[in-house]
Amino acid sequence: MPLDFKHTKLPNGLNILAEVNDDAHTAAVGFFVRTGARDEAPAVMGVSHFLEHMMFKGTDRRSADDVNREFDEIGANYNAFTSHEQTVYYAHVLPEMLPNAVDLFADMLRPSLRQDDFDMEKKVILEEIGMYDDRPEWRLHDRLLEEHFGNHGLGYRVLGTAQTVGDLTSTQMRDYFTQRYSPDNLVVAAAGRLDFDALCADVEARCGHWSPTDATRSYATPPTTDKRIAIDDDKVTRQYIAMLCEGPSAQDELRYPAKVLADVLGDSDGSRLYWALVDKGLSDDADFSMLPHDRCGQFMAFASCDPKRAEQVEATLLQTLDAIVGPGFDISDDEVTRAKNKLATKATLQGERPAGRMQALGSHWSYQGRYLPLNEELDRLMAVTVDDVRSVVERYTLSPRTIATLGPGK
Amino acid sequence: MPLDFKHTKLPNGLNILAEVNDDAHTAAVGFFVRTGARDEAPAVMGVSHFLEHMMFKGTDRRSADDVNREFDEIGANYNAFTSHEQTVYYAHVLPEMLPNAVDLFADMLRPSLRQDDFDMEKKVILEEIGMYDDRPEWRLHDRLLEEHFGNHGLGYRVLGTAQTVGDLTSTQMRDYFTQRYSPDNLVVAAAGRLDFDALCADVEARCGHWSPTDATRSYATPPTTDKRIAIDDDKVTRQYIAMLCEGPSAQDELRYPAKVLADVLGDSDGSRLYWALVDKGLSDDADFSMLPHDRCGQFMAFASCDPKRAEQVEATLLQTLDAIVGPGFDISDDEVTRAKNKLATKATLQGERPAGRMQALGSHWSYQGRYLPLNEELDRLMAVTVDDVRSVVERYTLSPRTIATLGPGK
Repeated sequence: MPLDFKHTKLPNGLNILAEVNDDAHTAAVGFFVRTGARDEAPAVMGVSHFLEHMMFKGTDRRSADDVNREFDEIGANYNAFTSHEQTVYYAHVLPEMLPNAVDLFADMLRPSLRQDDFDMEKKVILEEIGMYDDRPEWRLHDRLLEEHFGNHGLGYRVLGTAQTVGDLTSTQMRDYFTQRYSPDNLVVAAAGRLDFDALCADVEARCGHWSPTDATRSYATPPTTDKRIAIDDDKVTRQYIAMLCEGPSAQDELRYPAKVLADVLGDSDGSRLYWALVDKGLSDDADFSMLPHDRCGQFMAFASCDPKRAEQVEATLLQTLDAIVGPGFDISDDEVTRAKNKLATKATLQGERPAGRMQALGSHWSYQGRYLPLNEELDRLMAVTVDDVRSVVERYTLSPRTIATLGPGK
Repeated sequence: MPLDFKHTKLPNGLNILAEVNDDAHTAAVGFFVRTGARDEAPAVMGVSHFLEHMMFKGTDRRSADDVNREFDEIGANYNAFTSHEQTVYYAHVLPEMLPNAVDLFADMLRPSLRQDDFDMEKKVILEEIGMYDDRPEWRLHDRLLEEHFGNHGLGYRVLGTAQTVGDLTSTQMRDYFTQRYSPDNLVVAAAGRLDFDALCADVEARCGHWSPTDATRSYATPPTTDKRIAIDDDKVTRQYIAMLCEGPSAQDELRYPAKVLADVLGDSDGSRLYWALVDKGLSDDADFSMLPHDRCGQFMAFASCDPKRAEQVEATLLQTLDAIVGPGFDISDDEVTRAKNKLATKATLQGERPAGRMQALGSHWSYQGRYLPLNEELDRLMAVTVDDVRSVVERYTLSPRTIATLGPGK
């Protein structure tokens, strides 16, 4: 597979990147905006996600129907998502349709934000928030973040609350938009069969006149203390247990061994938690994962079970983690090798498609400001040793931790 | 992409297929067993899915730990699933690991079914069944199938019930296994960079001595009548509405236009239901899809919303469907073209990876008994006209229908 990395930066600060693969059957493009719930003022919590919805509601050149119809006409598989740190708009298309997708996104990202559409879309968001009521894991996840992060933006709800979304005005949204959707806070990433010069010409023609705003982000350190919260709710029939503690950031050199550690402890295909909880019939689900963020990071553990086993499952979960901290560290060469093999196959599988490479490219640039070829990623992963994994445990100690539980109570 | 289709059939009836792609970076293999909930006696409901779990519990040559460890050692991304009609075991690996994956699966599919493992795994399955209690959509889905299909096997729960799984004996499981996991009821499908002759030699060495059983399947016609069931449950906070009616089977020539119809009516990226319900802020989710089965098929519609809008949403959902039946049929050329473009891109994206081609290959052979190249699939899709879509509506009329709702009640 002949891969060719290309990069250019427009005078207004907009980065355009592509990994060109002439053998690919499709092309993928994403507009990665470095903004999310973390970057919101508390009073406008949810504005990033709401704004993502509004981007599909039309521009000076296009109605909402036009946007949707044109994506469908070119057969695009397109979508968008908002997290605490990113808002990403992306499409997978047949190669000849790439310029149309770029034209659509570039236009969409300068939306009309019409008051009627704003009022209507608010109802859509409130419906989406309502849907959370019947999803115990999501509710617990939100509460865990709130408890753990306190006033730090990583504790905000991506969807906002019925209160903050209900109170939001279109003026507040427009202000946020103007500040955050600036070319210097945005990366365009593409992959697959494509003409990079033509892509750059298209992006420059449409986005070259956008004004930079020097958009920044607060890097306050999140609090870390031991905390425990138990929520009783008789509408819930299962017991849910979640834990959050400090881990490596997206920039931390320890993130490769940390990924291996997370796989050894919590991969759903077989891991220490899997064997201790799921395989024994104690939990229906148990996992441990790494949540790397911009200049800070976390580890998260989760399990759900029959409420009558709540104490046993929580104790087993925590013992499994505590067992490797300090002199008890016993992660073996074999475990590390197996985890690396699994992760290498996953990365290779993701890298087989332009869709996967585009996401890796855009996300990596947003966090690291550089290109990471798949081969380098694999090399760094395969170089991880047991000592590296031990260093992660020594550095982070999986504590202090916030534990949150949700269940029917006694 | 130079694709080469290969097929051979062993004397005991086992079909081996592969789509060889020398440019691929991975290889994928799946063992497709033509058995599922549909093929169970009511008293052993859930045995197919339970058996799928037991396959990972070891053989004469390997313990459960060996199976798991060896998959990890080769870095396989592997899994299995059970539906009403299939039980599939599959792995995605780096090409040099394919023979190891084949050796593992071929051995696993002659499991020891040890009583201790059976007793332990029963607890795991009961946990999995328990997890459904907090998933209103899944509960409603199960009830909808039960109501619609009555005593027909497509109405059985894939997981079984706490009662049927609790009562199941290992002897019953062994009998089911012996009858259903026969070489003439099984297809091995592979895709990606691989040596077909070596694959056949490996499969023959391990599975060539398995005995055929002439396993069959009942093709009783499912009942179709108008039915309505409303479940009130004050543990649920949202209203869920689901509908099932007759549609084309996996063998029906109308399945391509039916797929287009389903996209026009119910695609989540923009469709008639999306615009009528989600875009208006009435529902958080609304869709319409085709469920093609072996020699029979269904269409399914679904929406969820705030309970105070239950009646409005259900009425809008049904009106959107009814509007196209009979003289009101007004699906346009444009809508059909857009749906075809979307579906073509999806199929091309899926076909980009060996993992996707292996699934298509195995599933298509299980249902059609023949090879369908991606190009032919795309040609058949792109040939669909408005008249073809009208024929689907005329043939199936989207009625009689079973409607099931789940909500907190008044």
